[in-house]
Amino acid sequence: MRGTLGVGESYMDGDWDAESLGAFFHHALGARLRCHPLIRLNRLAQDVYARIRNLQTRSRARAVAEEHYDLDHRMYALFLGPWNQYTCCFFDGTDQLERAEACKLEMLCDKLEISADDRVLDIGCGWGGFAKYAASTRGCRVVGISLSDEQIAYARDYTQGLPVEIHKMDYRDLPTSRHGPFDKILICGMIEHVGYKNYRGLMRVVRSVLRNDGLFLLHTIGNRDSTPVVDPWIEKYIFRNSMAPSMRQLARAAEDLLVIEDWENYGHYYVPTLQAWHDNFNRNWEAIRALDTPRPFDERFRRMWNFYLMSSRAAFEVEDLHLWHLVMTRYG
Amino acid sequence: MRGTLGVGESYMDGDWDAESLGAFFHHALGARLRCHPLIRLNRLAQDVYARIRNLQTRSRARAVAEEHYDLDHRMYALFLGPWNQYTCCFFDGTDQLERAEACKLEMLCDKLEISADDRVLDIGCGWGGFAKYAASTRGCRVVGISLSDEQIAYARDYTQGLPVEIHKMDYRDLPTSRHGPFDKILICGMIEHVGYKNYRGLMRVVRSVLRNDGLFLLHTIGNRDSTPVVDPWIEKYIFRNSMAPSMRQLARAAEDLLVIEDWENYGHYYVPTLQAWHDNFNRNWEAIRALDTPRPFDERFRRMWNFYLMSSRAAFEVEDLHLWHLVMTRYG
Repeated sequence: MRGTLGVGESYMDGDWDAESLGAFFHHALGARLRCHPLIRLNRLAQDVYARIRNLQTRSRARAVAEEHYDLDHRMYALFLGPWNQYTCCFFDGTDQLERAEACKLEMLCDKLEISADDRVLDIGCGWGGFAKYAASTRGCRVVGISLSDEQIAYARDYTQGLPVEIHKMDYRDLPTSRHGPFDKILICGMIEHVGYKNYRGLMRVVRSVLRNDGLFLLHTIGNRDSTPVVDPWIEKYIFRNSMAPSMRQLARAAEDLLVIEDWENYGHYYVPTLQAWHDNFNRNWEAIRALDTPRPFDERFRRMWNFYLMSSRAAFEVEDLHLWHLVMTRYG
Repeated sequence: MRGTLGVGESYMDGDWDAESLGAFFHHALGARLRCHPLIRLNRLAQDVYARIRNLQTRSRARAVAEEHYDLDHRMYALFLGPWNQYTCCFFDGTDQLERAEACKLEMLCDKLEISADDRVLDIGCGWGGFAKYAASTRGCRVVGISLSDEQIAYARDYTQGLPVEIHKMDYRDLPTSRHGPFDKILICGMIEHVGYKNYRGLMRVVRSVLRNDGLFLLHTIGNRDSTPVVDPWIEKYIFRNSMAPSMRQLARAAEDLLVIEDWENYGHYYVPTLQAWHDNFNRNWEAIRALDTPRPFDERFRRMWNFYLMSSRAAFEVEDLHLWHLVMTRYG
């Protein structure tokens, strides 16, 4: 009756279990249940609400930062790799998360053709992993912006001594800020919090602060279908006001503003990435539980996190979700 | 006053000339004149007509076959390479048209993962170059369809002795034909004649004759903007009822029908391709003029052809046009 929200909440409550949560999700998602009329009906109110309202206004956009990204960094450090990459890592010829993180970061720099002369903008800079990698390996200057106080504090410390600035700023304020123009712009795992109604506005912002001969790389989860919202359980417990864009939504947003030069799909790399995070999370569970935090990491949190990681893994496995790299320019 | 149509016709008539037609177009297109309000106004009637009517019905779809592709094959043979590839060739590590043709054909086979067990469908098979290459190098069976009598006659002869069938057929008739299902489907340089109103219908046709685990490769010229028509001069003199799709138009057409796995851009290869065709055409002009054909190849034809090849070359150079490879599946 309550769709995926009911499935997730009853799992968190311990009402049911599965020998392999990964196999459970693989079968459930592989059956394309999300296209089932009952599931669609279940999501109708949420869909309509998302189409009427803008779920990602300035004030609402802060919710996910405060609820998810402001979670204690020590918790993230206990399951992410050393570069704090909380987006897809590229398991290209390796099964080590650390090397997959570096492989991804290296590809971001390569696709952006970053050189020492470049001023680089990182919109949604997380814990500063890319900023540190790019500044230390390519010698460029990096400006990173974020809405999460925890991430900003960590990133400033993490990039100390490098030509990196981290600012608390909504992307909508970039054009009127004293920053820019930039030679290169990266958005890596941030557009998922922007909302389809604001994609075109985001493209306009990028266009306005990108140099004429600059490059823009968009690294994002991709949705196989066009929906205005994310799964209801993910919305409530993990990523408030979030959604993955579809090709149609992105192509429409960029048209006449930016030239899409290339559109590659690396969704298959998200399967080992989420598996690695899941394995680390559970291996280090005792340490995570022992963390002294305002909100205790209890058993319900552990089950929530496993549900999130394993359902996401399956979504990439059956290609409900992709992982896209779009390289864009102003004029081609 | 008459926009690109006036520019082209006055060139054909010999009213003006340019030391380098390529440089002329590079500057004209680089100035983004096609976005100029006067040029847009000039195209308004054509745009409106295209939106009201379906320019690519069954009967209209034959026009380009009869007017352009039915031109004497000996003429095409005097400027194309030995595989008769009248679409972009991949100049990857070579400056020889013949090798660039083979490089492109090899990549089509690789992306489709063609093996000897496969039944392959080639929608818009031209003179049978791909069918011959795939059948002879991979040992697969190929069914090719086309609307051009000249191409069909040539292709049948050209693929003699190989497991290749060539049929005269509109793509809309595939689902009710005795052919299919197919393991692999190729559309290479044919969707440019389909029209945006029919893209979704074409995707439905592909879906209906593609095996569940099959692969579909779409090789097409890509339009940086969404327009319902092609340039008026190209429309009148070269490709009747034709238009290059935009990302937005293709993403919309495929959604919920096919999963787009990958979207690559090889537009930069069209610059040397068109240059090679242009150079061959002019080097062999005396031989082309001497051909005994119903419609004589006169000086006006030569100027028309040069205008067509050099303006197209510049469109790829300034990225008004791209060359896309989309790999698609039914279910991911």
